[in-house]
Amino acid sequence: MTHLPDCPLCQPANPLHLIWRNDKMRVVSVDDPDFPGFTRVIWHDHASEMTELSEEDRQAFMDVVWKVEGVMRAELLPKKINLAQLGNMVPHLHWHVIPRWPLDSRFPDAIWAAPREHTPEQELAWSIFQENLQAQLPAFRAALRDLLENHYV
Amino acid sequence: MTHLPDCPLCQPANPLHLIWRNDKMRVVSVDDPDFPGFTRVIWHDHASEMTELSEEDRQAFMDVVWKVEGVMRAELLPKKINLAQLGNMVPHLHWHVIPRWPLDSRFPDAIWAAPREHTPEQELAWSIFQENLQAQLPAFRAALRDLLENHYV
Repeated sequence: MTHLPDCPLCQPANPLHLIWRNDKMRVVSVDDPDFPGFTRVIWHDHASEMTELSEEDRQAFMDVVWKVEGVMRAELLPKKINLAQLGNMVPHLHWHVIPRWPLDSRFPDAIWAAPREHTPEQELAWSIFQENLQAQLPAFRAALRDLLENHYV
Repeated sequence: MTHLPDCPLCQPANPLHLIWRNDKMRVVSVDDPDFPGFTRVIWHDHASEMTELSEEDRQAFMDVVWKVEGVMRAELLPKKINLAQLGNMVPHLHWHVIPRWPLDSRFPDAIWAAPREHTPEQELAWSIFQENLQAQLPAFRAALRDLLENHYV
């Protein structure tokens, strides 16, 4: 296993954010109030591109990404799932799995775009919706942990 | 196969942009001068999320994404590959495979972020680099077509 001292993703996960881990990767909650449910799947070993992994590792990695997406859809009912592996700033393989809703601050743009203008009514509706979502997150995380633990015995 | 009359990705690909296709998906060049080499892998059937596909279809889809990434790395030597499946505007499964370079207009941000400020010297360097990249694109596309055709006989 390669771990670099200066790479933030080579350091152990904050236990407060950890949903699940095995010997290859970890699943963590992203603490971003604009995107409740935002989840990352982070490969433990320091590698930058998917094609640096073996086919077997790549499939195992994506299998967890699909499981995160599946539980996210079932538990949070987002309008759309966004998946991204960018790593321009931190070139250590990690997948963003982001649930999106029509009233979130960037919809229908990518989350990295500038926020859209919203009316006060839209902002109010979003803040109520957001609060509901926050309340659903413990059940989402528990369902995801349960699926991953039972699948990878 | 489901095809929707109002979905732009349910329509046949522009033959000018088509690199390769089989009965499940197509690989097309994205004509974006800011990101030479930008390539998309588009599923033919109208589906919105990866977890709507069968496991077999999902693997076949990703296998082509990995091949695009592999040839892109070998032929264009990008600093980083960015992969994204967003679809908030067009919810028909398509993967963006984007080669990134330190002088491109958004680096190290996502391509959907606002452009960064560049000095005239940086802009000049990028325009020369960009021209070289454009000249390499036919070889990149030919190598990709060749790999995909020989793999999927």
